[in-house]
Amino acid sequence: VLRGLGDDAAVLRLRSPTLITVDVLVENVHFRRGWGTARQLGYKAFAVNASDIAAMGGQATHALIDLRAPAATPVRFLGDLYRGFQYAARREGAVLVGGNTSRAATLSVGVTLLGWAPHGYLTRDRCRVGHDLYVTGTLGLAALGLRALRARRPRGSAAVRRFLEPPLRGALARALARTGLCGGMIDVSDGCLQDLGHLCAASGVGAEVEVERVPIGSVYRRLYGRSPRLALGGGEDYELLFSAHPALASRLAALTRHHRCAISRIGRVVVAERGIQLLSRSGQSLPPAQRGHDHFR
Amino acid sequence: VLRGLGDDAAVLRLRSPTLITVDVLVENVHFRRGWGTARQLGYKAFAVNASDIAAMGGQATHALIDLRAPAATPVRFLGDLYRGFQYAARREGAVLVGGNTSRAATLSVGVTLLGWAPHGYLTRDRCRVGHDLYVTGTLGLAALGLRALRARRPRGSAAVRRFLEPPLRGALARALARTGLCGGMIDVSDGCLQDLGHLCAASGVGAEVEVERVPIGSVYRRLYGRSPRLALGGGEDYELLFSAHPALASRLAALTRHHRCAISRIGRVVVAERGIQLLSRSGQSLPPAQRGHDHFR
Repeated sequence: VLRGLGDDAAVLRLRSPTLITVDVLVENVHFRRGWGTARQLGYKAFAVNASDIAAMGGQATHALIDLRAPAATPVRFLGDLYRGFQYAARREGAVLVGGNTSRAATLSVGVTLLGWAPHGYLTRDRCRVGHDLYVTGTLGLAALGLRALRARRPRGSAAVRRFLEPPLRGALARALARTGLCGGMIDVSDGCLQDLGHLCAASGVGAEVEVERVPIGSVYRRLYGRSPRLALGGGEDYELLFSAHPALASRLAALTRHHRCAISRIGRVVVAERGIQLLSRSGQSLPPAQRGHDHFR
Repeated sequence: VLRGLGDDAAVLRLRSPTLITVDVLVENVHFRRGWGTARQLGYKAFAVNASDIAAMGGQATHALIDLRAPAATPVRFLGDLYRGFQYAARREGAVLVGGNTSRAATLSVGVTLLGWAPHGYLTRDRCRVGHDLYVTGTLGLAALGLRALRARRPRGSAAVRRFLEPPLRGALARALARTGLCGGMIDVSDGCLQDLGHLCAASGVGAEVEVERVPIGSVYRRLYGRSPRLALGGGEDYELLFSAHPALASRLAALTRHHRCAISRIGRVVVAERGIQLLSRSGQSLPPAQRGHDHFR
C-alpha cells in the first residue's frame, strides 16, 4: 500500500495477475437488521467476497468498502460493522485500503476485494471428463439457519451462526491450487446443484452426483433429517466445489488434517450430453431436486 | 484482462502502481430518477469515479459496476444505464471487467475503478508555499443545474447538463503530471473551497484565493450574476484543483489549446498559519464564503 485512505484514490503495488471481485449485502434482500449483530454483518460482507477470491485459488490482499446507511444509524453500529469486517480481513491477510460512506434509505455493505493467486488461478472452465467432483466442509446448514431466522425460531443456533458467519476457505483453496491437480472451481453460494450447473456449463461437461456422498453435518441431520434436499439446493454455504484429477484422492487426508476441513468426493465429471445426474446409493438416477435459490427473487 | 465477466473474480494484468477508487450514486441522495436519462446516470456514475483517478494524475483502465435496482425497474432503463456507463468508460480508455446486479429498494450505481499513473501519481499532500493554485474549466455551473432541477425550472439546460454530465479531465490531468511541475491535486466534488481545505490540510499549508480569478462561464453569469459564491461553494464540478511550480505558467497556453480546457490561476499557496483567505481584486481579505456542500446532509 503506497497510499491508503485519505486521498482521491488508493495507490497499491499489486502482484500480478490480480484478482478482483465486487459483491454486496443489502438489508431486506440478503439480511435483516435483527438477524445478527453488526459485527457479524461486517464479517459476512468480507467473507462472501473472500469466498469468490478463494474460488479462484486466491489470496485476498486489499479491500475497499462501500457502506451506505440511513442517517439515523447509530455510530456504534457502524463501528461494530467495521470491526467485524476488519476481523475477517485480518484472518485472511487482507487490509482495508479505501472506501466510501454515504447516506441511503437502506443499509448495505458493498465490498471490492483484490487478491492474487500464488499457485496459479483456478477458473470454472477446467473441469474435464474423468475428474472427480469434490466439495469442502458440509452443505445445507446455512439454509437451515436462514429458515430459522425467517421463522423467528430460536432453535438451531449453530445453523443460524453458520448463515451469519460463512467459512473462510482461502488457505484451503490455495493448498488445493498448489497440488496442481485441481480442474474447475467455484464457490457454493447459490446452492450446490445450481453452482455445479455453472461449473459444468463453463467447462462444457456434465456431472454425476452421488447424493449419499453429499456432506451433511450432525446438526443438519438433527434439524432436517437425512434428506440432502437443502444441502443440494439451499445456498449460502460458501464452500468450495471443484473437480480434480483422481490423483488428488491420495492427498485428501493430509489436506483435511492441516486445514481442519472435510473434503468430500461427491461424484464425477462426465460428458456434457449426460447433463447433471443425481444418483442413489445403488446407482439409480433420481429426479432433479430443487436447483438452488436466486438472490434476486 | 485475462478473465473478465463470468467467473468468481476477474483476473487482470495491471500496471504498477495501481490506483483504485470506489464511489456510488444513490437515488434520492445524489440524483432523482426524473432528473436525467438512464444513459446520463450511467455516464455520471463512471465520470465521478474517473474524476478521482484523474485527480491522481491517472489513467482509468478497468471498471466494476455494482448495480442495485428495485425489481420493477424496466430492463430497458438498466440497458441504457449500462450504455451510458460504457460510453464514458470508452472515452477514458477503460473496460468493464465485472460487477454485480442485485435487487434493492432504491436504485443505485456503485463503481470500482482501477487505473495507473503513466507519469507518476499526484497526491493531495504536495502543495508547497510559493506554488500557484490552479483550477481547470469553470466552476459553479453544476450547482446551478442542481438548483434548477430541484426547483423543476426548465430554464438553464446547459447548467442541468453540466450537473448530469461531468467533464472527463483524465487526459489533461496526465498532461499536467507529465510536466513534472504539479504539486498537490484534488478533484472539485464538494465545492472549491471545501476541497481546497482538504488539499491544504493534507499538505500542511494555507492558501490565498483571488475571488475575481475564479473561473465562471457566461451561462453562470447570465443565470446567477458575477458573484463567485456558488463557484466557490457549490460542488459537483468535477474539475481539477491543484498547485504547481510557477514555471507551469509558461506551459498553460499549449495545454489549454491541446485539451480545449481553460486552466485558471486562482491564487497561491501560503504558510499554514494564514489559513485559507479570500482576496478581493484590490487584495483585501473577504469573509469566508459558504465552505461547500456535504453529500451526507
